[in-house]
Amino acid sequence: MKHNKGTPMSTGFFKDIPAIKFEGENSSNPLAFRHYNPDEIVMGKRMEDHLRFAVCYWHNFVWPGGDPFGGQTFERPWFPADEMGLAKLKADVAFEMFTTLGAPFFCFHDADVRPEGKTFAENTKALEEITDYFAGKMEETGVKLLWGTANLFSHRRYMAGAATNPDPDVFAFGAATVKTCMDATHRLNGENYVLWGGREGYETLLNTDMGREDAQLGRFLNMVVEYKHKIGYKGAILIEPKPQEPTKHQYDYDVATVYGFLKRHGLENEVKLNLEQGHAILAGHSFEHELALANALGVLGSIDMNRNDYQSGWDTDQFPNNAPEVALAYYHILQGGGFTSGGTNFDSKLRRQSIDPEDLILGHIGGMDICARGLKAAAAMIEDGTLPQFVEDRYAGWNGAEAQKILAGDYALEDMVSYVEKANVNPEPVSGKQEYLENVVNRFV
Amino acid sequence: MKHNKGTPMSTGFFKDIPAIKFEGENSSNPLAFRHYNPDEIVMGKRMEDHLRFAVCYWHNFVWPGGDPFGGQTFERPWFPADEMGLAKLKADVAFEMFTTLGAPFFCFHDADVRPEGKTFAENTKALEEITDYFAGKMEETGVKLLWGTANLFSHRRYMAGAATNPDPDVFAFGAATVKTCMDATHRLNGENYVLWGGREGYETLLNTDMGREDAQLGRFLNMVVEYKHKIGYKGAILIEPKPQEPTKHQYDYDVATVYGFLKRHGLENEVKLNLEQGHAILAGHSFEHELALANALGVLGSIDMNRNDYQSGWDTDQFPNNAPEVALAYYHILQGGGFTSGGTNFDSKLRRQSIDPEDLILGHIGGMDICARGLKAAAAMIEDGTLPQFVEDRYAGWNGAEAQKILAGDYALEDMVSYVEKANVNPEPVSGKQEYLENVVNRFV
Amino acid sequence: MKHNKGTPMSTGFFKDIPAIKFEGENSSNPLAFRHYNPDEIVMGKRMEDHLRFAVCYWHNFVWPGGDPFGGQTFERPWFPADEMGLAKLKADVAFEMFTTLGAPFFCFHDADVRPEGKTFAENTKALEEITDYFAGKMEETGVKLLWGTANLFSHRRYMAGAATNPDPDVFAFGAATVKTCMDATHRLNGENYVLWGGREGYETLLNTDMGREDAQLGRFLNMVVEYKHKIGYKGAILIEPKPQEPTKHQYDYDVATVYGFLKRHGLENEVKLNLEQGHAILAGHSFEHELALANALGVLGSIDMNRNDYQSGWDTDQFPNNAPEVALAYYHILQGGGFTSGGTNFDSKLRRQSIDPEDLILGHIGGMDICARGLKAAAAMIEDGTLPQFVEDRYAGWNGAEAQKILAGDYALEDMVSYVEKANVNPEPVSGKQEYLENVVNRFV
Amino acid sequence: MKHNKGTPMSTGFFKDIPAIKFEGENSSNPLAFRHYNPDEIVMGKRMEDHLRFAVCYWHNFVWPGGDPFGGQTFERPWFPADEMGLAKLKADVAFEMFTTLGAPFFCFHDADVRPEGKTFAENTKALEEITDYFAGKMEETGVKLLWGTANLFSHRRYMAGAATNPDPDVFAFGAATVKTCMDATHRLNGENYVLWGGREGYETLLNTDMGREDAQLGRFLNMVVEYKHKIGYKGAILIEPKPQEPTKHQYDYDVATVYGFLKRHGLENEVKLNLEQGHAILAGHSFEHELALANALGVLGSIDMNRNDYQSGWDTDQFPNNAPEVALAYYHILQGGGFTSGGTNFDSKLRRQSIDPEDLILGHIGGMDICARGLKAAAAMIEDGTLPQFVEDRYAGWNGAEAQKILAGDYALEDMVSYVEKANVNPEPVSGKQEYLENVVNRFV
Repeated sequence: MKHNKGTPMSTGFFKDIPAIKFEGENSSNPLAFRHYNPDEIVMGKRMEDHLRFAVCYWHNFVWPGGDPFGGQTFERPWFPADEMGLAKLKADVAFEMFTTLGAPFFCFHDADVRPEGKTFAENTKALEEITDYFAGKMEETGVKLLWGTANLFSHRRYMAGAATNPDPDVFAFGAATVKTCMDATHRLNGENYVLWGGREGYETLLNTDMGREDAQLGRFLNMVVEYKHKIGYKGAILIEPKPQEPTKHQYDYDVATVYGFLKRHGLENEVKLNLEQGHAILAGHSFEHELALANALGVLGSIDMNRNDYQSGWDTDQFPNNAPEVALAYYHILQGGGFTSGGTNFDSKLRRQSIDPEDLILGHIGGMDICARGLKAAAAMIEDGTLPQFVEDRYAGWNGAEAQKILAGDYALEDMVSYVEKANVNPEPVSGKQEYLENVVNRFV
Repeated sequence: MKHNKGTPMSTGFFKDIPAIKFEGENSSNPLAFRHYNPDEIVMGKRMEDHLRFAVCYWHNFVWPGGDPFGGQTFERPWFPADEMGLAKLKADVAFEMFTTLGAPFFCFHDADVRPEGKTFAENTKALEEITDYFAGKMEETGVKLLWGTANLFSHRRYMAGAATNPDPDVFAFGAATVKTCMDATHRLNGENYVLWGGREGYETLLNTDMGREDAQLGRFLNMVVEYKHKIGYKGAILIEPKPQEPTKHQYDYDVATVYGFLKRHGLENEVKLNLEQGHAILAGHSFEHELALANALGVLGSIDMNRNDYQSGWDTDQFPNNAPEVALAYYHILQGGGFTSGGTNFDSKLRRQSIDPEDLILGHIGGMDICARGLKAAAAMIEDGTLPQFVEDRYAGWNGAEAQKILAGDYALEDMVSYVEKANVNPEPVSGKQEYLENVVNRFV
Repeated sequence: MKHNKGTPMSTGFFKDIPAIKFEGENSSNPLAFRHYNPDEIVMGKRMEDHLRFAVCYWHNFVWPGGDPFGGQTFERPWFPADEMGLAKLKADVAFEMFTTLGAPFFCFHDADVRPEGKTFAENTKALEEITDYFAGKMEETGVKLLWGTANLFSHRRYMAGAATNPDPDVFAFGAATVKTCMDATHRLNGENYVLWGGREGYETLLNTDMGREDAQLGRFLNMVVEYKHKIGYKGAILIEPKPQEPTKHQYDYDVATVYGFLKRHGLENEVKLNLEQGHAILAGHSFEHELALANALGVLGSIDMNRNDYQSGWDTDQFPNNAPEVALAYYHILQGGGFTSGGTNFDSKLRRQSIDPEDLILGHIGGMDICARGLKAAAAMIEDGTLPQFVEDRYAGWNGAEAQKILAGDYALEDMVSYVEKANVNPEPVSGKQEYLENVVNRFV
Repeated sequence: MKHNKGTPMSTGFFKDIPAIKFEGENSSNPLAFRHYNPDEIVMGKRMEDHLRFAVCYWHNFVWPGGDPFGGQTFERPWFPADEMGLAKLKADVAFEMFTTLGAPFFCFHDADVRPEGKTFAENTKALEEITDYFAGKMEETGVKLLWGTANLFSHRRYMAGAATNPDPDVFAFGAATVKTCMDATHRLNGENYVLWGGREGYETLLNTDMGREDAQLGRFLNMVVEYKHKIGYKGAILIEPKPQEPTKHQYDYDVATVYGFLKRHGLENEVKLNLEQGHAILAGHSFEHELALANALGVLGSIDMNRNDYQSGWDTDQFPNNAPEVALAYYHILQGGGFTSGGTNFDSKLRRQSIDPEDLILGHIGGMDICARGLKAAAAMIEDGTLPQFVEDRYAGWNGAEAQKILAGDYALEDMVSYVEKANVNPEPVSGKQEYLENVVNRFV
């Protein structure tokens, strides 16, 4: 069964790379999948429908390979994409890559896909034109939109924040831009709409009023949710947490912080989260921590799949390649019921030395394969049952009638004293068995 | 005016160190204050009443100087304090130190002050006996209790958590213990009761159910608040955030996380926070971030004053010594209105090589002096007005009528489009002036 | 073939755990090896002879489970081991564990194995007695000594360093202690002698003269090397780098730092390094970086195998469990020719909640299995040849005659100008193919 | 006395900012120095001659304010400086700023000052032209060159390293470029020539041969030193260590690493170091550590003055603003005898929101003032003598005859045993007095 309806005419950019096929674990063909087999059934569902892979626009088709100490390394025929013709060539190459990989979804910011205009009106017009073009490509290829988003961080007008800017006109410009991006996402049947507030935060507290900025951000997000309902958009609204970089401190620091913000502004049932491994690491967490916490709080929406280098203090956005880590991520995703509107978006970029067009394909093959491998391992852990059962058993004491009463609020602090004194309670600790559990995981990864 | 009513009979431990006096900036006497002058008026209030210094029991009188690679270095006549006589000798030395320093407050955990019993009943009895003894020392010296707390982390029964333990009996034992510590704090007119959940978290997600543990912790804290009201305790209930260490992940990670937890369990108006520089650093924040955020969320209660080494990845709990950093901390405290029930508790410990009794005094003199210096600088910044006025001016645009309507919810996302299009809004960015503001700070620190 | 000559009489500590056997990948028996098959031939050598596993004494038989915020959690019948009878019981259990695991080697510090005496003479006598006892156990079981070492960091006399102490008497005491430990290691045919300078560094530069301390440390190490030759000890002298913890800064920071120190003191051909994953992480490196650098500098001696938690800023010394990471470590070890006198010492400790005796066995089974798996993957990568060949090809330009002349010093800076100008050199960059190479690795791990 | 010979004709860029004057501590004029008084005598030398301030070209006149998530924020009339006219306008503004600040020195890379050519020949020609132009400006203003350097990291040809590139042609191109930059530096009487190897390292070990790259880098540096002697250049050759960023691992990691490299290639007497606070932090050190170590090893050359944000994991290059930290830096510099050819180069950049031309001036005023304040405090600490005397006294035991014999190699390990046994040595530890010493520092900062 084909995962894409059709293949567009070749742009020639990728030369003679054919559609990537599953060849199985023993293949040493670098242009084949060894684990990702879209139609393979895992826990009763097709692998493709579990993973819901998306290719992102920004790292693959916009980023020139620069870093803080060096300029462009990638040479792409559509650079600098400052007019519509080049934007369409970029789109042609992008959809060619989606179909070559068999990726069912893609994701984009407005600024990734259209030339930058001099005014809001020019931006809107260009976005509408490219949205139409995308609609045609999507129809042609069967590729779908996982999510759209607005870039409210690259242009200098946003240097001090969009929603949290001290200038209300910047708020207005940002809000208006989000409206156009929600419209585009709605028009393209995007399954989610994402907000990443890379400039919503501060560089120095000396010029910042956090109370004001919180109120601004809360109102901004409420506007988004209200508009979603007004236009009947059925996709999920997602916030993507990140603790810092580019900004010294970002308000959407991590899952716990965003949850508190949503509660404060009455949005905890309206907004879910888009979690990224690299951002979890920067916040001092493991990726599985953020996933497990989002599950516990009921706010897990989608993931940005990548990895950060553990020795680098910034967001390296590398393709994932560590099977045990990826397996634990999907273990939590499956434990939470798996994706509904969400999916696995590769917010991963090539190293700037990987300048061959082929490298774009190779990076994604590796990422898709490691995710497929992780998914299979996660499913095996769940089907085996040893790990979830261990956790269930460990807390079994809390299922007792008296313990349930404690949780239900039937007992007061002084009742605990009576109980401890009467029963002469003096609990003996029980082994946490961490090493045993890690060994169990290693049977599957 | 004397800050302490009287001086107890000398134990001889500190030999001939007299009460520490203020001698002014030019003094080079290591046993004098150069900045801390309790009766000096700062912004209309005595310095002592601003700072509300407390000396902690645990680092000064309990910790033997060990670290993960070495044992005891301090030789104290009351070690090991495993019987009541030694506990009282320890108390005698402690109050002698409080009065020598002129510190108006102290803080303690139950396990710091009483011998460890074999049962809950033994612990309770010993705590009551030492509480009586403290009452006498406090009456004698005028030293007051800033806060009491229960140690629910050192004993092996708590190795997998107290409130969040998989065994409900450990929850009960912990809750019962908190009741006895709240009683002791109430009896001693402690101005706050603190909870630090050093074991409330996890070592590995593989054996952990975060949803269950959240429910347990929420119920535990509600019990504490209910009991406070039942006994008519007027002090504040404070949670002290810390992200990790000893535990890999602690639930009370930082201000934002605890705020979300309080909201989730309906406690945001009942509980405030006790913030520590070292814990802020471990969570990836500056101390002033945590203070400013707690102000913005209305949950600032008290502080644990110390500093972490920026090159060490664990909680070093050193005495504060960086005037500019301390000044910014008090700037936010003063901006939030200053302490009410809270104060400045030195959760600071000697380096383990500082084995002289005199070092205990010297460490606190340095800490008290740097705080006094910070307070004076903070007050000068506020009185000068340049910094707060800059912030006020920066957001002035939001005071306009239309901007206020945005915040009030009078406008929708699509109204922002109309506004931007009609007025052809295209905002020019404005300098954030960070370097200028940092220079202004340096006029005062 | 048996890896241990015999099995000592059971102490009963491990109850009914039999000798651990290889059962193959499909086994789900937690008390069996799934990958470690000592007699399996890998690249022409028995797996046991490649890996040369050692069990360490300190974490398994000495550490009580304490951490900076909590005390003992492990209950062991030989605690507190402050007299010779208990020290011998400890040894009995230790050798029972070595044989149960089939570990061919062990490692120890003097302070791990003998009661602490009040004087140097008492320590020496006790060490000699336990050395005799070990000799008997080793003869009985066939277990060998991978390395011995002196604990010059736990006792308070060393709080300000051993070799680098400001007091020459501490230097003398430390040096004398090393002599006794070298004698014990020599007597037991230990294959290496290790020095880890956990207190050789500083807490504050304010009281430190780094120049003096460098001279002291250089002389100390020269004494060790001279003594080795005098007594005809054939084992290797190894330094174990660590950047910090317990000390703020340790002089043996990392491979590059120790190399510079050895060069400065003329010891680069006399001393090799014992590298640890956790220490590499603390120094800001990956483990494979430290291994590859030690190979490049010709100083790789042995490894301490463990892992640090990437979110904790201290040395967590956990059992390794990430197969891809371990595979890359052994890849570099094999590329460097494999171990000669060195081996794989598990400097890994249980989590303090893992209080069952069985957990000691389970932790090591997991560690041994993951190393075996890593070794097999590393060997497969080398035998496949894709990775090493890629590197060889990448630098092929340097094999040319002119390039060789550059390296040989035949050309000067101005010759480079002539060459560039004449040939109009303007080199085009070539893809680094990092994603491709990471995908290749994932074919094997 | 004037520190600059003359003031060039105004470009108008800084509008009406006059030359910055010293007004003393009580000034609140943001465009005045409060501490930097060039002619003030400190420890017998003019403050200007101690500090030897330099303004850098790259951050001030080249960097457009971009970061990894946003583009240009600064609007400068000379951008994009891709032709000689704009390069000269840039130079005019630069020298105007140097004289406005009264900075006696500046620093530059070739790529900062000339348009980028298509070939080596074009680059050389453009560099020569701008060098002539600089010579005129320097003559006119009296501003001198602290150091020159070659940018071997921004152009894509260097993406895989310059000296350590797998392609010998890139080595040749880089070496030829260094020759032209050394010539320019020599022509302008630059007091030092600096090498910063931002791309000399690796992104992944999978494609890297560290042994080969070490040999290449060693030969490269030897070529530089040989050329220096050949042309009779009397300035110092300096290496600037940095551990990472842009590259995952950089070979010139820190002071200790570079020292080992110099020893390995026989260059420890030919090359010194240029140390930067921000790079020290990234390597896990304090700035004073790197300075003290460079002093101890005899390789301290010059400093790049800035600060990194302690909560950001990348090189933030902010203007220094913490007086206590800066004081400790100059304490070590003065203890090492002060600068000879070196100086204090502000490798500091504005925050990208600081878009006013005035901000360039304000940032440097703050930086120069904090350095002046630090210098005065450092001098006071040395003149007071308490701190250095404490260290001297602490090691006094090593001045004894027997201790000196130990260091001289007169004693062997077994002699230490005899000594300890005969004298029954059992040393008592002595307090390290860290808190006392920190309090002493706070009398001066």
